[in-house]
Amino acid sequence: MTQLELMGQKAKEASRSLGILDTESKNAALLKIADALEENGDQWLKANEADLENAKNNGMKQSLIDRLALTKERIKGVAQGVRDVARLRDPVGETIGESTRPNGLLIKKQRVPLGVIGIIYEARPNVTVDAAALCLKSGNACILRGGKEAIHSNTAAVKIMRGVLASLRINEDSINLIEDTSRESASELMHLNAYVDVLIPRGGAGLIRAVTAGATVPVIRTGEGVCHVYVDRDADLDMAAKILFNAKCSRPSVCNAAECVLVHKDVQSAFWEKALPLLKTKNVLLRADEEALNVLGENAEPADEDDWDKEYGDYTLAVRTVSSVDEAIDFIALHGTQHSECIVTRNERTAQEFLLRTDAAAVYHNASTRFTAGGEFGLGAEIGISTQKLHARGPMGLEEMTSWKYVVLGNGQVR
Amino acid sequence: MTQLELMGQKAKEASRSLGILDTESKNAALLKIADALEENGDQWLKANEADLENAKNNGMKQSLIDRLALTKERIKGVAQGVRDVARLRDPVGETIGESTRPNGLLIKKQRVPLGVIGIIYEARPNVTVDAAALCLKSGNACILRGGKEAIHSNTAAVKIMRGVLASLRINEDSINLIEDTSRESASELMHLNAYVDVLIPRGGAGLIRAVTAGATVPVIRTGEGVCHVYVDRDADLDMAAKILFNAKCSRPSVCNAAECVLVHKDVQSAFWEKALPLLKTKNVLLRADEEALNVLGENAEPADEDDWDKEYGDYTLAVRTVSSVDEAIDFIALHGTQHSECIVTRNERTAQEFLLRTDAAAVYHNASTRFTAGGEFGLGAEIGISTQKLHARGPMGLEEMTSWKYVVLGNGQVR
Repeated sequence: MTQLELMGQKAKEASRSLGILDTESKNAALLKIADALEENGDQWLKANEADLENAKNNGMKQSLIDRLALTKERIKGVAQGVRDVARLRDPVGETIGESTRPNGLLIKKQRVPLGVIGIIYEARPNVTVDAAALCLKSGNACILRGGKEAIHSNTAAVKIMRGVLASLRINEDSINLIEDTSRESASELMHLNAYVDVLIPRGGAGLIRAVTAGATVPVIRTGEGVCHVYVDRDADLDMAAKILFNAKCSRPSVCNAAECVLVHKDVQSAFWEKALPLLKTKNVLLRADEEALNVLGENAEPADEDDWDKEYGDYTLAVRTVSSVDEAIDFIALHGTQHSECIVTRNERTAQEFLLRTDAAAVYHNASTRFTAGGEFGLGAEIGISTQKLHARGPMGLEEMTSWKYVVLGNGQVR
Repeated sequence: MTQLELMGQKAKEASRSLGILDTESKNAALLKIADALEENGDQWLKANEADLENAKNNGMKQSLIDRLALTKERIKGVAQGVRDVARLRDPVGETIGESTRPNGLLIKKQRVPLGVIGIIYEARPNVTVDAAALCLKSGNACILRGGKEAIHSNTAAVKIMRGVLASLRINEDSINLIEDTSRESASELMHLNAYVDVLIPRGGAGLIRAVTAGATVPVIRTGEGVCHVYVDRDADLDMAAKILFNAKCSRPSVCNAAECVLVHKDVQSAFWEKALPLLKTKNVLLRADEEALNVLGENAEPADEDDWDKEYGDYTLAVRTVSSVDEAIDFIALHGTQHSECIVTRNERTAQEFLLRTDAAAVYHNASTRFTAGGEFGLGAEIGISTQKLHARGPMGLEEMTSWKYVVLGNGQVR
């Protein structure tokens, strides 16, 4: 048995008792974890300093170093996040269906945890705590496999959290960190079918694709977002410009940011008069098709075929001209990633057509795609945003981290 | 583009219109399909004869020939099954959640079809129609890959069904059959990620394991059932004997049949006095551990370590002695397949312990495991019984063949 198999076996074992632990005990553990992270903040910061020093020596990009770095303030934020999770409703045990059959059998459908959740992620120590807290609250044991660049920070955080569990006599194997950050350990985790019920990759498109393609453990694909804003012929153009500006520019690195605007040919000039000044404040680079270039002139450069499938993740926007809502819908079907898609129009009928026929986790009428998030949808925190249809779609909160079982009560029924 | 890729592309395209087709049109198509199968029964029977002749020439086992064979009566049954599906509630479009956020956004969570469902199955022509009907009703296009032994029957059935769709101007690519029954075609289907949203294997354990291990398309694992009946110290032993007899003998080939009985050591003699006469009427072969052998004597033979993990599928039963409900729970955790597990006891507390701590799609108190089925649970028909936790667990009816999308209505909200 390899080290990871042993960890898997222990996590599975821990999940059996964690899965039936009462809500009060789980919340008490979360609150104590939050306190412990703050109280032992110096320990966590010291570990983080080691990671940061390595990162600088290895020439890590500043934007990545920013994500890796902890501060007293950030630790407070992380701890607060854990306290927020403690306040969320516990879905485990909830009866979500009940019926008495003609033969007298009482059948209850009750929420249960998934079991053991594997999380593969990059160099962000806050994810270590966020993910562990969400798994704990939903009764799932977790196996964390973070990026090697954050190994000291992650080891310190998990040590603190496991210490709290042990002090409360909760099986500490409920939270596990794979300290071997080689490629092989990630690959082994992706094939640990005997012990891991689901894998959730969190990070960039490359990571997610590698896990989806490589794993035999069931994977929930998250966070790839080539999102569109369609500006209809009947759009309120002021509103359309504001929504596009927000969808593109409020946080371009995230998955619910817009990557492409589809503009109805009849309103191109009028729309860009409103939109260009806003986008220019952020120096947005426009990559446009030929028709749009005629209107945009020097404000844009020609798009390649590649542009229609790109998740830029920065201040770049693809611009495409369409001649109908049908064309917009078809274009999105071909180039979207089924994440978040928006139509701006005053025409209710056109809106209904778009909302019905566009296949995505979230479809918007007259609102920014940036709202696709657990907090914004009222789910509380989220473990990720699913872009697949199986199991969960869109923001995954605690409920989406559960399955169900049927509890059947009889008095001797046979078939 | 290969033939199968082309089929996938067409199926995906068809799923876009089928997915938003109104319930009345889908029901009309189902009723007409049922009529057409009966009216063209001779055509279907003739095709089936060709399959049967090949089967006999190839020395197929009689039990498999029975499954392959159609009769007028069976066709009536299949057609009736399709009419039953027409009567089921259509889950598509149903609003399963709705909230207005503080910013005024109205968020509706609505059921949508999964898209394109691939079904890989063995030589049972009735599955061709059952599966197509369930997919059609739930708005999903299907790609069917049946066993080569039933190819003529399947081709005929699909021709009839597609003819009905065409006559009603429903895209006939909503129902597709892979006529190439080579191993390669199954393998290609398992990797058709661009067009297939989910694969559901239906058949024996070998088929299901091969698909689960080989596919990159998400798979729903169905129908592996090593189910247990635990006879507690506090059981009503008459009831226990009847439940065990039913769970083992009413239909031993199916996945919800019991494969192993766990008997509390304190009630062994008394229990077997009741149970043996019943099991003997079906000549059930008992494979028992040492303690049970002491009681059962010549009525049983010694079990190997292998027996505890076997899905016999016939009149064979493993017998294991336990000394507590805890031991029963632990044994099931180790050897069960998370399908259906039963405790027989009059002790409510022991029952609660078992129901809470046993991890399976269905857990039973004082009732036969044989009830785990869509019809028995009130779901109407079923496409299979999921033994995994992701997406759906237990009998999968129409609701379990759907996903959801969030429809977000705003009036210019930005974040």
